[in-house]
Amino acid sequence: MPPISPLAPTASPTLPPIPGVRLASAACGLRYKGRTDLLLVELAPGTAAAGVFTRSLTAAAPVEWCRRVVKRGRARAIVVNSGNANAFTGLVGRKSVEHEAKAAAKLFGCAPHEVLLASTGVIGEPLPDQKIVDALPGLRSQLSETKWDEAARAIMTTDTFPKSAVRGARIGKVRVTIGGIAKGSGMIAPDMATMLGFVFTDAAIAAPALQAMLRDANMRTFNSITVDGDTSTSDTTILCATAKAGNPRIARAGDPRLKDFRKKLEEVLRELAQLVVRDGEGASKFVTLAVTGAASGDAARRIGLAIANSPLVKTAIAGEDANWGRIVMAVGKAGERANRDKLKIAIGGVQITRNGMAKPGYDETPVVAHMKGREIDIAVDVGVGRGRWTVWTCDLTHGYIDINGSYRS
Amino acid sequence: MPPISPLAPTASPTLPPIPGVRLASAACGLRYKGRTDLLLVELAPGTAAAGVFTRSLTAAAPVEWCRRVVKRGRARAIVVNSGNANAFTGLVGRKSVEHEAKAAAKLFGCAPHEVLLASTGVIGEPLPDQKIVDALPGLRSQLSETKWDEAARAIMTTDTFPKSAVRGARIGKVRVTIGGIAKGSGMIAPDMATMLGFVFTDAAIAAPALQAMLRDANMRTFNSITVDGDTSTSDTTILCATAKAGNPRIARAGDPRLKDFRKKLEEVLRELAQLVVRDGEGASKFVTLAVTGAASGDAARRIGLAIANSPLVKTAIAGEDANWGRIVMAVGKAGERANRDKLKIAIGGVQITRNGMAKPGYDETPVVAHMKGREIDIAVDVGVGRGRWTVWTCDLTHGYIDINGSYRS
Repeated sequence: MPPISPLAPTASPTLPPIPGVRLASAACGLRYKGRTDLLLVELAPGTAAAGVFTRSLTAAAPVEWCRRVVKRGRARAIVVNSGNANAFTGLVGRKSVEHEAKAAAKLFGCAPHEVLLASTGVIGEPLPDQKIVDALPGLRSQLSETKWDEAARAIMTTDTFPKSAVRGARIGKVRVTIGGIAKGSGMIAPDMATMLGFVFTDAAIAAPALQAMLRDANMRTFNSITVDGDTSTSDTTILCATAKAGNPRIARAGDPRLKDFRKKLEEVLRELAQLVVRDGEGASKFVTLAVTGAASGDAARRIGLAIANSPLVKTAIAGEDANWGRIVMAVGKAGERANRDKLKIAIGGVQITRNGMAKPGYDETPVVAHMKGREIDIAVDVGVGRGRWTVWTCDLTHGYIDINGSYRS
Repeated sequence: MPPISPLAPTASPTLPPIPGVRLASAACGLRYKGRTDLLLVELAPGTAAAGVFTRSLTAAAPVEWCRRVVKRGRARAIVVNSGNANAFTGLVGRKSVEHEAKAAAKLFGCAPHEVLLASTGVIGEPLPDQKIVDALPGLRSQLSETKWDEAARAIMTTDTFPKSAVRGARIGKVRVTIGGIAKGSGMIAPDMATMLGFVFTDAAIAAPALQAMLRDANMRTFNSITVDGDTSTSDTTILCATAKAGNPRIARAGDPRLKDFRKKLEEVLRELAQLVVRDGEGASKFVTLAVTGAASGDAARRIGLAIANSPLVKTAIAGEDANWGRIVMAVGKAGERANRDKLKIAIGGVQITRNGMAKPGYDETPVVAHMKGREIDIAVDVGVGRGRWTVWTCDLTHGYIDINGSYRS
């Protein structure tokens, strides 16, 4: 077992039961020894489902399956395994997916297209689906509303700690809960969603409204983090609403009664996304990168990701070197409008540049002190407009090379 | 001094004199101790000049200067320093550039806009231009046609060996020479040119024809390498023709008499570009990545660079792990058309995949043996068209982190 990331939170929240959601996990020996690797989630009849997925052209078989399920907008079960991504497994992979969905559907008396599936782990090896199917009946008998921590652990791969987040929200006078779990540590540059994230609520909200809110919040959260710039074949974030809270069912995402729900949903997704960065492979620093003054929000996001993905910026941060010249370089290569001669860079709140050069008399002392901390704040204003975006990343250390030079072997 | 890259060629060619080109170098103490950091090149009257430069929006001051020089197409001198990039130095940087150009122009009795300038090294610190200007008269007295090796050494930064290449070519019945030097090791993802490359010929070719041939060959050579995906603020490749060889002056790039010249020019640029990869920061493997079956040549190049820039692919190669699943991932994120179910991947000439999955009975033994070598060959066919491109890269090792966690400090 690798040591827990130094950026892990000191305490992780205990998720309360979310009526309509029951969970169970098991070790079925797909790849790892001595740990769980399978999660089964039961969802109450009437649960609405939304999802966002990787934009990879080599998407995994379960991703293709889930896209079809989410179009119908209903789900009764989720089956997730770690250790094998069922990606680039051709026709065999598609058959595995059908086999799993049918087995879970039989268990809960629903249709296969009401079963969501996700797999994470090594790419290109056939999924031992029979092991999963054999384990499902035993899992069903252990379903419980309280097994959130076990669930978050069962879906881990190179993660060093389980990830969960929860918020209460009000819809009119009714209190609802939004809680979720996620996994992810490497191959993190989500392009539509994260590695794997599962968020649940007991609110009654129709699937199209869920989908719209998820897409929107996902863009500012999971789609705004990066560990290594490598987009997974399996990125999946699912949002399920069980309708057990008793609020009048809401059909449209634009409904004003969803204002608080929308805000809290984004908070849950942001917390999960930041936990993925805090568990970035080999990470020793958590970096918040705020870009302002861009031509648009999208442009600001792309500039932010260009900086966050630069190996030179990331290694400088690892080396605690306030090498802001590399930030200038990354802004320059981002392919978005930026005014070199108005570019402003601040680290730890200290303005470093003015008029396209270092400020006269710039004193590096407080910036050097900031770089020695675990939480690094970088602000970049590119001087052309009002677009702004915040992205989160981690540094690039020897640990990343250690983990990825030998992951599969 | 860091050890010489294990991928360095065992012998580097001794460049012959190229009539019309004289060189000298000196140590003027811009940043380094105990090594040269300044190169002066004198070009004969009548020399035509072409150049390609970084597309970075935060381009360095000398890059902006050279763009204007190249538009006029004539050059009498080149001044290059290492240790300081004169990038993100604002108005001060532009003044430094003028100061240098005027001083060199005075020395050779030419106009300032016949002086090409390049600077490489740290970003964001004012260039101590007076040191350079003070050193120029002494350098002039030492100019020689044979100082190629000294020249290649004076422009190095984190490079571990000097880089040069040379070819003979025929224009009609006249033999001409094409020879050049380059530097580069990190911040290598050229987007229009490389770090720094200077190529000279004694042929008589008009500047617009030189420019067209350089742009074309550059795309398939320097623009097809990557070390770390980070595009420099200073990328510059210059091609100068002194017209001393005695061939009838050729005005058009399309002239059939340039067929051999064009081929040899590309060979020189390719050799220099590959030397940059062989000196990639921390590199232990030289990787040739051939992409076929893409929608276009451009698409093939972008897919090749997506694979070559993937930290997960690069760390797998460093770990000698034939983890082809990560190549599938990188093809998927490249944003270009690819048919997942026709994707073919070969490593060391061994076909690994068929029909969107690993070939039944795939024997990894010869691939594992290939991965242990220093020269790694990867071929990827994406199954949608006839576009093809070859890119070159290196692996990502602990050495890269060591070098870049402490470069500036």
